[in-house]
Amino acid sequence: MKVDKVEPCVIADPDGWTTLRSDTVFSSTYVSVDEVNVRTPSQPERELSWTVVRRKSAVAVAAMTGDGKLVMVEQERVAPRRALTEFPAGQIDDVDNRFEPDVILATLQAELREEVGYEIAEDAEVVSLGYYFTSQGFTDEHIYLFFVSKVVPLSTGNAPDASESILGTRLIEPATLKQMVASNEVNDSLTLALYARLTARSILF
Amino acid sequence: MKVDKVEPCVIADPDGWTTLRSDTVFSSTYVSVDEVNVRTPSQPERELSWTVVRRKSAVAVAAMTGDGKLVMVEQERVAPRRALTEFPAGQIDDVDNRFEPDVILATLQAELREEVGYEIAEDAEVVSLGYYFTSQGFTDEHIYLFFVSKVVPLSTGNAPDASESILGTRLIEPATLKQMVASNEVNDSLTLALYARLTARSILF
Repeated sequence: MKVDKVEPCVIADPDGWTTLRSDTVFSSTYVSVDEVNVRTPSQPERELSWTVVRRKSAVAVAAMTGDGKLVMVEQERVAPRRALTEFPAGQIDDVDNRFEPDVILATLQAELREEVGYEIAEDAEVVSLGYYFTSQGFTDEHIYLFFVSKVVPLSTGNAPDASESILGTRLIEPATLKQMVASNEVNDSLTLALYARLTARSILF
Repeated sequence: MKVDKVEPCVIADPDGWTTLRSDTVFSSTYVSVDEVNVRTPSQPERELSWTVVRRKSAVAVAAMTGDGKLVMVEQERVAPRRALTEFPAGQIDDVDNRFEPDVILATLQAELREEVGYEIAEDAEVVSLGYYFTSQGFTDEHIYLFFVSKVVPLSTGNAPDASESILGTRLIEPATLKQMVASNEVNDSLTLALYARLTARSILF
């Protein structure tokens, strides 16, 4: 298996940014809400106040079977109250080591096994496609994106998390995915972001 | 101006879904956090518990100048602590009328004027590209996507909201955008989602 170097996404004050205040006003297992005041490079004399929802970073992967199909997952999603067809994805639970490429890769492998029942083939390439921010206006959440050139099904099938509601694995032709993106049938950010990176890099057409 | 019909994104219990409980545990001007219990079609005997962050829906637009450039905005973003180059976007503030196509279109026009200083040309087509969910695992936030075939600059320039931190308008060649998507220079969900829909529909290449 050939694995690209992963560039971790570190969220901290770069040159010209100063966090003056960051107060957590709500916190649960899944999210926290922080009220922050910052100074930014463009107007260093001004304090900008903002509400930031913090959430773990995550990994999403477009993986291809030996016969050129993309492995996707159909899943009931509570927030939008509907079932969506998405690329497999999951959060990086080892928060202390979240910048370690090995931890990011282990999350990718776990999601392939658990959500869709596949593993990376020995002769596969794992291509890092960067990351993206899910909603830059209000959350620090970001998702690392990958392409895996070859995966093989596990004899044991998938083993979804009982707290989620995974309906099944779908094998999708790239041309069908293109139609699903065009027609609004695919309408979640991680699948659209992966599709954008894959086509911009001419991995998919 | 020729305007496509917009399909509103209604979030409610479809057939087989039942919301048993929805308690708001945090609320501010910008977000609320709800603890919900639902029954879903796949396992109607089970209660699924979830934390949902609610936020206004929004509009994002890829608009093209008369000479074929895309109008983008460079903006300091507090949550990821960096300046991003994005397509113009903004929230639908008229919440009571958020499903009205006219209200959605008015938001699009306001964002073009205020964020980047452009207006829709009289002979333009406004193409509806559906919508997407920014982070289906935790929020109901969704963004309507549009392509405007021709915009013209306002003589008065832009008029950004003082509570934001807009650095300026950038006119980007489609080929340059493709490189920016490929290289991780564009890394926000709304720009990637628009790029995905535009390429899948062969509006951009």
